[in-house]
Amino acid sequence: MERAALILRTLGAGAPRLGVTEIAQRVGLAKPTVHGLLRTLERHELVVQDVETGKYALGPAVLQLGNAYLDGSELRARSLLWADSLAQRANESVWVATLSGSRVIVLHHVFRPDDMVQILEVGAAIPWHACALGHAIAAYHPRIEELFEEPLVPLTGQTRTDREELEEALTAVRRTGMAVEDQEAALGDAGIAAPVFSRGGVVAGAIGVVGPAERLLGVRRNDLLLAVRESGRALSRDLGAPRSTSTYG
Amino acid sequence: MERAALILRTLGAGAPRLGVTEIAQRVGLAKPTVHGLLRTLERHELVVQDVETGKYALGPAVLQLGNAYLDGSELRARSLLWADSLAQRANESVWVATLSGSRVIVLHHVFRPDDMVQILEVGAAIPWHACALGHAIAAYHPRIEELFEEPLVPLTGQTRTDREELEEALTAVRRTGMAVEDQEAALGDAGIAAPVFSRGGVVAGAIGVVGPAERLLGVRRNDLLLAVRESGRALSRDLGAPRSTSTYG
Repeated sequence: MERAALILRTLGAGAPRLGVTEIAQRVGLAKPTVHGLLRTLERHELVVQDVETGKYALGPAVLQLGNAYLDGSELRARSLLWADSLAQRANESVWVATLSGSRVIVLHHVFRPDDMVQILEVGAAIPWHACALGHAIAAYHPRIEELFEEPLVPLTGQTRTDREELEEALTAVRRTGMAVEDQEAALGDAGIAAPVFSRGGVVAGAIGVVGPAERLLGVRRNDLLLAVRESGRALSRDLGAPRSTSTYG
Repeated sequence: MERAALILRTLGAGAPRLGVTEIAQRVGLAKPTVHGLLRTLERHELVVQDVETGKYALGPAVLQLGNAYLDGSELRARSLLWADSLAQRANESVWVATLSGSRVIVLHHVFRPDDMVQILEVGAAIPWHACALGHAIAAYHPRIEELFEEPLVPLTGQTRTDREELEEALTAVRRTGMAVEDQEAALGDAGIAAPVFSRGGVVAGAIGVVGPAERLLGVRRNDLLLAVRESGRALSRDLGAPRSTSTYG
């Protein structure tokens, strides 16, 4: 089971199609073992084998599981209205995300109201340290140590990867209740995010705006900070967070 | 491993949150066994345990896998342009789907150009027998028998569930190269779909329009059939299908 999860993660980690030998190398198991696991995963359509090349890829059943996860996510369900109204107010794209391992997973994405051609980012995974959503969650994460266990890879020349610098950034988030990122995930793009808390004051995720740095961090910066903060609070209250957490800052 | 896949499928099959006892009952395993498997799945964030209720749900890692699957799907990648132009031409929502088990999984969804409020259906699973996309794929499925193994449940009063009737419908698809469904998946809605073939002439999925029955099956029916058929052919050629399959009908 442990090994099957590793195979799924390996297939989900970049290279879309891998042969048995490559998978065996990456997960550190014998080829016959990997072959047997792949057969079972294939029977459940969690992986599929390409007829032509014989290589393996994730199967359509994982998409179905992902969809079921979204359907069952209370954070996502409760965020729909707040994300819509934030997108209207800010006139920017809005993302709602949660943490999975050391990455932020986008659960909901509202397009910028006046743009037509945009790519839906639901399901996208971004290293926590490189985005405002990740900082907003990490600052209140009960097991912050775990987030520093994996290597902090730079995505742009601006990405902070130094632990001390990141700790400082998180302290700032706890002081202001807000996270701001300037071209650390992608050149030209910035993010402003607020944490979202649920019952018991546990951090459940974050909500924020994403867009061109010049538009987000220029004259509108303070207005956007205010709009994002209010959305984070409203969504937290909706999720049953106690007032003490939803009125920080 | 087999058992872990069963647990994931159970958690993905409707009830978003289940206790250990409920899961054990549904998968037919002893509680301690299920508990151990859940622990492992939780470590990989494939499942999460609710702090308050102790119940289990799918975890964010499945969403990440689903996204990786979409990223790696050649059918989806190649369909983006064709689906867009079909949506423009038909002025209707366009879905691109593939088969997973006995269900059709939506890989790509282009909104109807002039509608603003629509729900993105990527990842949605629809029983194959109740939709045009499913019929379009099933008609060319090499192991059609498997599709009749699971019970054919009616979704509306119009859903065909009789095997003989469905076989007739599939024969009609093979004759015309097109599938039409009238309110069999949802009351008021209809679908028109064409199969999509890939290298070797294997059916890879289907592309089609979905919308109100009165709009799809009225005076515009023939125009829409033509538009969908041409999209199916173009996409098939793009995927490397031989001319003999992409020029059926």
